[in-house]
Amino acid sequence: MHILVTNDDGITAQGLLALAQAARSIPDTKVSILAPDRNWSGGGHVKTLDRPLRVKETILADSIQAFASDGAPSDCVALALLGFFETKIDLVVSGINPLPNLGHDVTYSGTVTAAMEALIWDTPGIAFSLGSVENHLNIQDFTPAASIARRVIQSAIENGIPDGTLLNVNIPYLPEAQIKGFRITRQGLRVYRDRLDKRIDPRGRPYYWIGGDSPTGTPEAGTDVGALADGFVSITPIQLDLTMYTAIPTLGNWKF
Amino acid sequence: MHILVTNDDGITAQGLLALAQAARSIPDTKVSILAPDRNWSGGGHVKTLDRPLRVKETILADSIQAFASDGAPSDCVALALLGFFETKIDLVVSGINPLPNLGHDVTYSGTVTAAMEALIWDTPGIAFSLGSVENHLNIQDFTPAASIARRVIQSAIENGIPDGTLLNVNIPYLPEAQIKGFRITRQGLRVYRDRLDKRIDPRGRPYYWIGGDSPTGTPEAGTDVGALADGFVSITPIQLDLTMYTAIPTLGNWKF
Repeated sequence: MHILVTNDDGITAQGLLALAQAARSIPDTKVSILAPDRNWSGGGHVKTLDRPLRVKETILADSIQAFASDGAPSDCVALALLGFFETKIDLVVSGINPLPNLGHDVTYSGTVTAAMEALIWDTPGIAFSLGSVENHLNIQDFTPAASIARRVIQSAIENGIPDGTLLNVNIPYLPEAQIKGFRITRQGLRVYRDRLDKRIDPRGRPYYWIGGDSPTGTPEAGTDVGALADGFVSITPIQLDLTMYTAIPTLGNWKF
Repeated sequence: MHILVTNDDGITAQGLLALAQAARSIPDTKVSILAPDRNWSGGGHVKTLDRPLRVKETILADSIQAFASDGAPSDCVALALLGFFETKIDLVVSGINPLPNLGHDVTYSGTVTAAMEALIWDTPGIAFSLGSVENHLNIQDFTPAASIARRVIQSAIENGIPDGTLLNVNIPYLPEAQIKGFRITRQGLRVYRDRLDKRIDPRGRPYYWIGGDSPTGTPEAGTDVGALADGFVSITPIQLDLTMYTAIPTLGNWKF
């Protein structure tokens, strides 16, 4: 079982190291690491076509070999699945993102779109994120999340992820003993609270921040948002058919 | 009816001008234009959070006022919907992309993710792409596509796009008289034919192109790929709940 580990926070992120170590601790696995050389958070599902990509060999903080690319997370996955490594990749794991990826976050999220890219190439993918909050960014302990990630990866290897599906896993930011269990969920409702923040630069010209507050969510039962709010690991099966099937008959009555 | 026109090919693209003119030709509309200052094709659903955005006033080739931002297409939509313009935006239209956006293209496509961003902010969105082929890029005639876009926008205004839905419209690259009609479709199967192309630079170091051939698709009946192949305009209703509902019971049996 050859596992690719990637992320969207970049090769130096603590969450990548934690996930790589979790994957390596599973018996009979070979782990390769190829991740962006910088932070791509909120960078979406990218295919870089108009410039070539560079890949540099490096080591993680535990002295293990890794590769850093100047592409997006999904580019790293494409590089790996199209043959950068000599042996075939059997599973792509992405993360551990320090902030959760819930509801509509999935199309923005570099962590999740890395797993989407795996799905495009018929390879199972799992995205891992930690249900932390913004101001915990620098004091993260990834130990409980890494242990949970190990259990999810092991179960995915044993059971096999259903075809055409990736797993979007969000883990409560709690000591492992306080995590109440695992829930299989649907994508919930994210509530974005962005505001446009117009400022004037020292030369008198305007610039614009997409600012405002961190997103919240509607903690409905059965959803990713709800599971995380209740202290459960949320595992959402995600697919790439975005068709709104129920709208097809309605649109069929339109005249053009 | 205040319509925002954007795209992912950048403010100077011929397809943007064609779409803006189509929108302006609809009675009782006010049209504003805010598009990226450069090409973002394949750039995904982006939210730029770690740097501010600039917006410059410019004019299109027909001397009409427009605004160009250094953000992604989805950033342009966020800027507009969060208040860059004085009056509220009622509809976002994106395109006309010179190449089709079919099947799994929707999560990569800047054209479609611009409409996704509209949906995030509860605003109707329509993405328009032309079913052209790569080598037609410089000899495009957008006149038939602009006329079709006008008919779709007008029908969307009259009927109202169903809640939580955007329209992904692909138009055959044919004279209007040869276009056979409109089909409401589901997202089809795209077949990517990317290959990793490793090269050596003049300094002896490797670099990697995500190369290979243009994607094809499986022209199944009922799909976007099939409709376009048959000479019909394809209109696919798209939503943002990516949950693979059928996998939930299966995953419920996993042990962690």
